[in-house]
Amino acid sequence: MSSAGGEITRKAITDASVRIANHVRHTPVVTLGSDPGELPHDLTLKLEFLQPTGSFKVRGAFNLLLSTDVPVQGVIAASGGNFGLAIAYAAHALGIPAHVFVPDSSPPAKVDRLHRLGAEVSIEPGYYREALAASEHHVARSGGLFAHAYDHAAVVAGQGTCGRELEEQWPDVDTILVAVGGGGLIGGIAAWYRDGVRIVAVETEGTPTLFRAREMGRPVDVEVSGVAASALGAGRIGSIAWQATQQWVEDAVLVSDDAVRAAQRQLWEQARLLVEPAAATTLAALVTGAYVPEPGERVCLLLSGANVDPRSIAAPQIT
Amino acid sequence: MSSAGGEITRKAITDASVRIANHVRHTPVVTLGSDPGELPHDLTLKLEFLQPTGSFKVRGAFNLLLSTDVPVQGVIAASGGNFGLAIAYAAHALGIPAHVFVPDSSPPAKVDRLHRLGAEVSIEPGYYREALAASEHHVARSGGLFAHAYDHAAVVAGQGTCGRELEEQWPDVDTILVAVGGGGLIGGIAAWYRDGVRIVAVETEGTPTLFRAREMGRPVDVEVSGVAASALGAGRIGSIAWQATQQWVEDAVLVSDDAVRAAQRQLWEQARLLVEPAAATTLAALVTGAYVPEPGERVCLLLSGANVDPRSIAAPQIT
Repeated sequence: MSSAGGEITRKAITDASVRIANHVRHTPVVTLGSDPGELPHDLTLKLEFLQPTGSFKVRGAFNLLLSTDVPVQGVIAASGGNFGLAIAYAAHALGIPAHVFVPDSSPPAKVDRLHRLGAEVSIEPGYYREALAASEHHVARSGGLFAHAYDHAAVVAGQGTCGRELEEQWPDVDTILVAVGGGGLIGGIAAWYRDGVRIVAVETEGTPTLFRAREMGRPVDVEVSGVAASALGAGRIGSIAWQATQQWVEDAVLVSDDAVRAAQRQLWEQARLLVEPAAATTLAALVTGAYVPEPGERVCLLLSGANVDPRSIAAPQIT
Repeated sequence: MSSAGGEITRKAITDASVRIANHVRHTPVVTLGSDPGELPHDLTLKLEFLQPTGSFKVRGAFNLLLSTDVPVQGVIAASGGNFGLAIAYAAHALGIPAHVFVPDSSPPAKVDRLHRLGAEVSIEPGYYREALAASEHHVARSGGLFAHAYDHAAVVAGQGTCGRELEEQWPDVDTILVAVGGGGLIGGIAAWYRDGVRIVAVETEGTPTLFRAREMGRPVDVEVSGVAASALGAGRIGSIAWQATQQWVEDAVLVSDDAVRAAQRQLWEQARLLVEPAAATTLAALVTGAYVPEPGERVCLLLSGANVDPRSIAAPQIT
């Protein structure tokens, strides 16, 4: 099977936007200004978590399935997180069989959700890497379409539509903060904007795939842990994202799990937005000073997903 | 003291918009279409809960404090819910002392939040009515400005800015679904739109202040109970709202607590929005058929607040 690498063109992203337009949501950009609380002033957020299945991943999933001749065996994916839900959702919407390989470290509720979306689910002992190996083995046997969660040109082009949409919504943005796992989202956004904006990659200390790759000068395997391991735990930056980020991403910064949890609470307490740790890394970068904007710099935080148990936010009850 | 009743003009609402512009947020309107889940298709939502303090109430609170000569004793309010937070927040932002009378049925976390906003807090045995009586007694003694939570022209005009903002954002809207407690929000919105759109009032079976008033032909006291009692438990429709809704509100419908809880869960599961029961009544009205739009009717659900304990949403963990 091919993971169809190589540079993503702006045309590929525009084509993807047209292709997926009827299936994904146009997510709003909101500016929260004038708050005497602890939020940095004039915080601008793209609420990408409003997508079906609660994350940006449906963009890439639909673009893959709509731009590929899918064999009758359907689509096969491995996921411990959001991509599995997105592929199952897109396949269901398009009438395509889906088979998702899930590590047994995934919560049962996620497996239920995949079943409710009509997917076949195989549970594999271990983590993402083990589920990925099992899914590849199954593809080799069955002949289904392998959907890589981030290192596939059609998937990255699909995620890039998030950048294209943001450019239409806020042409004057200077800087975008984006969380990085395998790099599908940041790869697509970088491929859209190129030199047009400053793109800052944010990772947790427990999931530093891009940070370590930049230190080493090449993609390397990273042990993943911590609060964002489920969504950002790819363990190695994808080759497409690596190429794109080397060309167009200026900064890669790290934040601690504690800063991420605090940012989650802050988004809830100050703006009633409940997002997953991966999305909250962007606010954490701003609050901790991991990234410090210039005065007047127009910064957008990409809130990429909200697949989180509401009970995990230790918020006081206020009604 | 006067509750400054009478008809709210469109000019009063436009003036309020200018007055409060630097203090409140411009809340987005989002269309969630193309979802094969259980959400009605092409649901359009105004995310008003993104306001500081998590509800629309800051609009009226700022308009009151910015359009009135506030005596040195400051502002005095009674609230078991969102208005107290909004007044404390607005007073804090404007450097005005605030004293909020709170029923002892309010959760301690809300009292903490009022303290953190710098308000003086008095806790009164009973419910909203008892806190209101205590606050009025204190106003008579102290000479502070009494801020009625909903039956004050400046407050209603402030809430009306939400309608004005929606008209700019979505000029083609046909119908707006709005939850009703004391009627400040629906009164303001009706006073803005007049005959321009269809406005549908939604209440729970346990808080039917407008519904009963329409049955009886005049405002009547209602015993309040149930899931929305904290935010919608005014117990009697305000006189300003009564006048406005009699002129411009076509329908008033009721929904059950169970339907409200289901709508809350649905908004979380299908759109990752966590709102309070009052806000979820609008979706409940649509899902239960309490309000049935014509084919093609462009309906906006006003999600008015999100002051809810995230742990109260019984959502499965999916990451």
